[in-house]
Amino acid sequence: MNHSHTLIDSVLAGERRALARAISRIENETEDARVILSAIYSRVGRAYRVGITGPPGAGKSTLTNKLARHYRAQGKQVGIIAVDPTSPFTGGALLGDRIRMTDVEVDAGVFIRSMASRGSLGGLSRKAGEAADILDAGGMDIVLFETVGVGQSELDIAGAADTTVVVLVPESGDGIQAMKAGLMEIADFFVLNKADRPGADQAVMSIKMILGFRPHDATSWLADVLKTQASDGLGIDAVASEIERHRQYLLSSGGLETRRKARLRQRIRGIIDEELHEVFWNPQRASMLEARVASLATVGLTPYDVATELIGDFRKAVSPKSHV
Amino acid sequence: MNHSHTLIDSVLAGERRALARAISRIENETEDARVILSAIYSRVGRAYRVGITGPPGAGKSTLTNKLARHYRAQGKQVGIIAVDPTSPFTGGALLGDRIRMTDVEVDAGVFIRSMASRGSLGGLSRKAGEAADILDAGGMDIVLFETVGVGQSELDIAGAADTTVVVLVPESGDGIQAMKAGLMEIADFFVLNKADRPGADQAVMSIKMILGFRPHDATSWLADVLKTQASDGLGIDAVASEIERHRQYLLSSGGLETRRKARLRQRIRGIIDEELHEVFWNPQRASMLEARVASLATVGLTPYDVATELIGDFRKAVSPKSHV
Repeated sequence: MNHSHTLIDSVLAGERRALARAISRIENETEDARVILSAIYSRVGRAYRVGITGPPGAGKSTLTNKLARHYRAQGKQVGIIAVDPTSPFTGGALLGDRIRMTDVEVDAGVFIRSMASRGSLGGLSRKAGEAADILDAGGMDIVLFETVGVGQSELDIAGAADTTVVVLVPESGDGIQAMKAGLMEIADFFVLNKADRPGADQAVMSIKMILGFRPHDATSWLADVLKTQASDGLGIDAVASEIERHRQYLLSSGGLETRRKARLRQRIRGIIDEELHEVFWNPQRASMLEARVASLATVGLTPYDVATELIGDFRKAVSPKSHV
Repeated sequence: MNHSHTLIDSVLAGERRALARAISRIENETEDARVILSAIYSRVGRAYRVGITGPPGAGKSTLTNKLARHYRAQGKQVGIIAVDPTSPFTGGALLGDRIRMTDVEVDAGVFIRSMASRGSLGGLSRKAGEAADILDAGGMDIVLFETVGVGQSELDIAGAADTTVVVLVPESGDGIQAMKAGLMEIADFFVLNKADRPGADQAVMSIKMILGFRPHDATSWLADVLKTQASDGLGIDAVASEIERHRQYLLSSGGLETRRKARLRQRIRGIIDEELHEVFWNPQRASMLEARVASLATVGLTPYDVATELIGDFRKAVSPKSHV
């Protein structure tokens, strides 16, 4: 307990090694992660959270790093959380670290951290949100979430961010592809990166056309499409301005509070789901399931029969009176 | 009940409209979906299930349709289930239907169906698997799952398939991108489509190089990379042969049974998760959550405190003795 308290104090003081250690505990789901998160909770809420997402190869890392430099030049403290899909045979986060661009890492004002999902994709955006809480409580002004690659993480991260930026390139397909990918719904605005490549203007037009189908009225936010060449630093200031414009919109419309409450709701639900899951799948019920799966072809039960049986067993066990 | 029984008989007789209606009930989670699935369960297990996945724009629809034609030419009954991400403002499945290629649809031997996720992405692969059960019991020899776009569906579908084919194009990035996307782990083999485009050979080499890092021994399956030009029908026979070779491998190695048991296990777990979720989030606990979220900033509770409170309430309510 004393140990956790020292770590909590160091997190609140913004010490980099403490931030890293606290995030590792979240990632590894250690017992004291929850103690730490509860202890810092009253200090959370100041940092602005921006999700940078989009298909692989769109240049999200580059854009994220250039944005981080932009904010650093304004004297802001910046945290970057790179959210990787699980990669059982290589270690997703490891890869993420290795091939990451490193031009901002040497700057002590930027804290970079990769997080892998270790199998539970649903849990990843919650963990990323909790890691952002650590950075928030530690004094970061901006937390940038960057998703690595395809997968649910790409869409989920919108749930952890105040503003979500979807990065596309001319080659990543037109607006219809982005719509099919579910990216239209989560984008607060789009960045068309590598805008010097052929087809850039057509891609912008196509995205804008699809955006026109989104229901909106005079007061709603209209998602724009910005062009960048992130590797040359072109268009980064405009992206930062658009993030700020969206933040102002959310503040004045009450949208920021709505989003943060939605996030809180999701987070409480996530904690409950995981806890129920843990209580349900004790070794005994896990064995029951295995035995049923092994014999299901022979005994004429359906998956629904087995589910009903296991839930019945759970109902008996979970009762507070079951130990009487 | 009588009504469901008629539908069940018609499903088992392979009547197309009955198959469509049964799948709609699964998609809409109506009460009798479960009755139907249980009733047909003993007739499930003959169809071979192939997942066709990969990034947007890779040509999955085209490849799927050409494969369907290939199997039709062999006199096989083919079902196609196109799995779409949710698209709240357009209706994902609607879009999927509209922009789908239609050259196989007129053939009565091919049954095509789009399924949207309607918000619960985790549930989509289970529903796709249940839809495949319907088609399986209805006499289809092959069920092709085709994922539309990015998102968890792309990875999840591997859990519903016997053989998973990942489709890439030269432009969709190299092997490292695919690895980052989590696609390396789920691929039983790769198809490099649009192989007449520049960079095709480098893309194949790059994927093969990354595949070389997968742990394997003399008896393991080695994922290959096949080149196709699906829109011209080139390479389709080779893809079908590779699917067959993988099926034979799974049959002889016992891998097919292992996969099907894993699927069954996942499905039972999915049913349980959904049921627990439904029991947990009754209107009363949903209101408790809303009240807490509304006041959380002011009362000094953490998300963990609220989760603990709600779980305590659930434990009391779920007890079989709670009505005494």
